[in-house]
Amino acid sequence: MPTFRLVLEYDGTDFEGWQRQDPAHRSVQGEVEKALARVTGERVGVVGAGRTDAGVHAEGQVASVRVDTELDAERLARALNAVLPADVAVVSARPEADTFHARRDARSKLYRYQIWNGAHRSPLRERRWAWVRAPLDVEAMRRAAAHLAGRHDFASFQSRGSSPRTTERTLFAVDLGGEAGGELWLRVEGDGFLRHMVRNLAGTLIEVGRGRRPPEAMPAVLAARDRRAAGPRAAAAGLTLVRVRYAHEAEMP
Amino acid sequence: MPTFRLVLEYDGTDFEGWQRQDPAHRSVQGEVEKALARVTGERVGVVGAGRTDAGVHAEGQVASVRVDTELDAERLARALNAVLPADVAVVSARPEADTFHARRDARSKLYRYQIWNGAHRSPLRERRWAWVRAPLDVEAMRRAAAHLAGRHDFASFQSRGSSPRTTERTLFAVDLGGEAGGELWLRVEGDGFLRHMVRNLAGTLIEVGRGRRPPEAMPAVLAARDRRAAGPRAAAAGLTLVRVRYAHEAEMP
Repeated sequence: MPTFRLVLEYDGTDFEGWQRQDPAHRSVQGEVEKALARVTGERVGVVGAGRTDAGVHAEGQVASVRVDTELDAERLARALNAVLPADVAVVSARPEADTFHARRDARSKLYRYQIWNGAHRSPLRERRWAWVRAPLDVEAMRRAAAHLAGRHDFASFQSRGSSPRTTERTLFAVDLGGEAGGELWLRVEGDGFLRHMVRNLAGTLIEVGRGRRPPEAMPAVLAARDRRAAGPRAAAAGLTLVRVRYAHEAEMP
Repeated sequence: MPTFRLVLEYDGTDFEGWQRQDPAHRSVQGEVEKALARVTGERVGVVGAGRTDAGVHAEGQVASVRVDTELDAERLARALNAVLPADVAVVSARPEADTFHARRDARSKLYRYQIWNGAHRSPLRERRWAWVRAPLDVEAMRRAAAHLAGRHDFASFQSRGSSPRTTERTLFAVDLGGEAGGELWLRVEGDGFLRHMVRNLAGTLIEVGRGRRPPEAMPAVLAARDRRAAGPRAAAAGLTLVRVRYAHEAEMP
């Protein structure tokens, strides 16, 4: 029975997240599993590398699936795209060893958080950008972001509702692109992420950008290991899972 | 009674075009007029520079309106944005002479037509890009586009359903950006556009890109003055009205 790696793109706006819950909640996982059942006749579970929340998008979510089919990877991808709804698609597919597991084997994930810092509400950015009207001090945000790179205990940036074995994570890169008054994007690549971690990081950096806390306060925010020490969670719409890397592909700095 | 120039941004996906029809058809004009009535208490008509079709977007549509209000332009814009639906917003507003008319006074309009030439359907581009899966010869498209710049009779690119005084128009610039296999965008700036003209131009250039007609055929397509000589109309979702220029602002090449 072959195992496949599927790279998925989706617009998260009309999903209640990646994870299948009950039939009343529309999930990306549920839609992919339904499409697999239609194409192969088999009811199988797919594993996603990241459990994206409601409203969060993906350009390169990775899913692993073991399914009894005669189709090769490319034909499977085409067949799935023909039956998947308009807001989710298979970008690419390839065969993998039976042991491949999209979540356990992931070595790094790259997320992008998009901020529209324009003076007016932007309908064309409504689904993919979080609007911050107040002028942002991008240099201060960059200095704050620099404190986050490396291995740290990110407990201050973890929302309640999960209890991982450890709250230590390594961020390989934390970059802020774009310019004040226009489009800004935060790119965060790390070996793993706590619940709502990127959105909590983005919300805290936005506070720095608004002058509500100094960039130099970031080490103390990390050291507090207390969610109340960091800023609010930024809106889901701004977040996109860009890509996932695996052992043999990882280029760790 | 003051006159204003409003610059509007909208996601055209859920609109049946700019023009107000009956209450069963959701139009941008209708929503802006409703918002004006709520903010000023006055029922007034707004004039749009371009009558965009259903599904067509705008980053810089311009509307003129004469309305009895004490609000200055900036406050009017803020008040309108507070009551307009999420898919339309006022980007900026300024006072104008009473004679200002958004459509009659427009000297040039710039449209962008976006083509996603990737191998897979793209959910995140679904609302704003037309998908052409077949590989496109971008150089051939550029050569074809070069034949369109200047003053020509564009009757071959006019859809039925309108009968303008003349079908001659001047295109100041026709440029194709991006690259084959990825994102491509056609930018067309002209002194006026016939019905569906940009989409008919885009559809014809896509045929050239697919090798179905040579770039050198474009002069004959123009000379035919017959809609059947050109290619099919490209999808509405790919089209955006980028900006409108007026007499004192126009920089004509």
